[in-house]
Amino acid sequence: MEIENEVKRITEFLSVIIKTYNFAGALIGISGGIDSAVVLALLERAIGSDKIKAINLPERDSSKESIKDALLVCEHFGINCEVQPITGALRKLGVYSLFPPALFIPESIKIAYSRNRWNRYKEPYMNDLKNEGDELFLKGVAYYRAKHRVRMSKMYLEAEKCGYCVVGTTNKTEEMMGLYVKWGDDSVDIEPIKHLYKTQVYELAKYLGIPQKIIEKPPMPDLIPGLTDEEAFGLTYPEIDKILIDFENGIGRNDESAQKVRKIIELTKWRRLKSAGIDDFPEL
Amino acid sequence: MEIENEVKRITEFLSVIIKTYNFAGALIGISGGIDSAVVLALLERAIGSDKIKAINLPERDSSKESIKDALLVCEHFGINCEVQPITGALRKLGVYSLFPPALFIPESIKIAYSRNRWNRYKEPYMNDLKNEGDELFLKGVAYYRAKHRVRMSKMYLEAEKCGYCVVGTTNKTEEMMGLYVKWGDDSVDIEPIKHLYKTQVYELAKYLGIPQKIIEKPPMPDLIPGLTDEEAFGLTYPEIDKILIDFENGIGRNDESAQKVRKIIELTKWRRLKSAGIDDFPEL
Repeated sequence: MEIENEVKRITEFLSVIIKTYNFAGALIGISGGIDSAVVLALLERAIGSDKIKAINLPERDSSKESIKDALLVCEHFGINCEVQPITGALRKLGVYSLFPPALFIPESIKIAYSRNRWNRYKEPYMNDLKNEGDELFLKGVAYYRAKHRVRMSKMYLEAEKCGYCVVGTTNKTEEMMGLYVKWGDDSVDIEPIKHLYKTQVYELAKYLGIPQKIIEKPPMPDLIPGLTDEEAFGLTYPEIDKILIDFENGIGRNDESAQKVRKIIELTKWRRLKSAGIDDFPEL
Repeated sequence: MEIENEVKRITEFLSVIIKTYNFAGALIGISGGIDSAVVLALLERAIGSDKIKAINLPERDSSKESIKDALLVCEHFGINCEVQPITGALRKLGVYSLFPPALFIPESIKIAYSRNRWNRYKEPYMNDLKNEGDELFLKGVAYYRAKHRVRMSKMYLEAEKCGYCVVGTTNKTEEMMGLYVKWGDDSVDIEPIKHLYKTQVYELAKYLGIPQKIIEKPPMPDLIPGLTDEEAFGLTYPEIDKILIDFENGIGRNDESAQKVRKIIELTKWRRLKSAGIDDFPEL
């Protein structure tokens, strides 16, 4: 990947699509992570800061650190960031009653408890992709996915009242590994980095001058407090991307890690059942 | 369409897909309209009433009549219907502050006001599909779409905590004419009637014994209170379906109605911009 050309290609893509589809500007949700930071930087180059609305959408379980990081990223690029909590809406929908608050318990214990809950299962990431698990596990699935969907709803509300589009931050590794919520963070108008592997997003981040703090923090999927993406997969991003690129290039691999990735990709297809109609199954 | 065979084909599709994808049952949102009534009847035949969760999700602007109709449909098929208002969540998201309440104004005047607002525009349905309009119009668009997205979020929350799938009720006429909300009522797991035109859904309704009251009421898109689908299009369903079927059969038509439908289909493609990535535009 020749970085300079890639940046040019993406910024041109963004400005052409936004113009063609008649959008007055672009809204982006800033999580404090690397992907949204990179997309914000690309957007700023493509359409300028005055046509960008950046919002951070924290809820009861969000860490204060991630809000601070979101503000840091926006400030770095001179873009105003609105913090719009979705806690009230989630409470009214009944999301939090699945896991009632533990107000006076220290953060570290909450994190340990949640991780414990996740690690009780042999292959929790696979269970999630397969719509299976016991009652407690399914409640956990419903719980974290609802947050992403309400976040999406709020982002569209804020975007559409100004005629703006919603810009997504999913990358190719996440997409292939199923690390997204169907009708949640996958549901946007434009995906400027969906063709890039996570390790390529890091290369872009350095080129675009994303603050070092953001580049260095471990990516978290917002599944379980404190759980990182790499812990969820049981593999590091460089390992996964190497395997995905080997698969793409037809390089046969059958080591344990490659088998794991192949299994996840296979299962991800289940989640890809998206509004499937009878015509999508000609064999029936 | 041979009705009996079609019903058999759809019920088999439903039971096979639900089993294959490991769902413990199916959740359906009942609006009180004909489409959800037909899908409920099909589901009941496919998997039995004990594996169905039927919910009605009213909000501030929902008519009491539609809640009553939803209950009537469910009672007719011996299925329990939970009424779960989403008003609180919508209020917390800031949806209602776009159009503050008019508590002491009679329903008829509210309807007349809303319609007037809609009819101020020359081609409001087209504007909607094209992401264009003045500030008031865009606010109206953001307003009605948010309701559908929050409804979707709530349906998934209720479904996923039991390992159920979400079943959709979009038909082919709505799909082709763009009468759905992106990441709202189009966002489900399975669409059992998406291959059927609206007039075919009516045929199924009669065969399946849907209550006469539901068959006779005019379909409303839940866009603007009191506005029917046919008013939104400016064409009746039999007219639209005749044109769509003529197009499908390669019958050239250039009358005014056909031109209108062609224009809407063309514009609907804009709305079909769904999470578009750079690889979807090879020309860029």
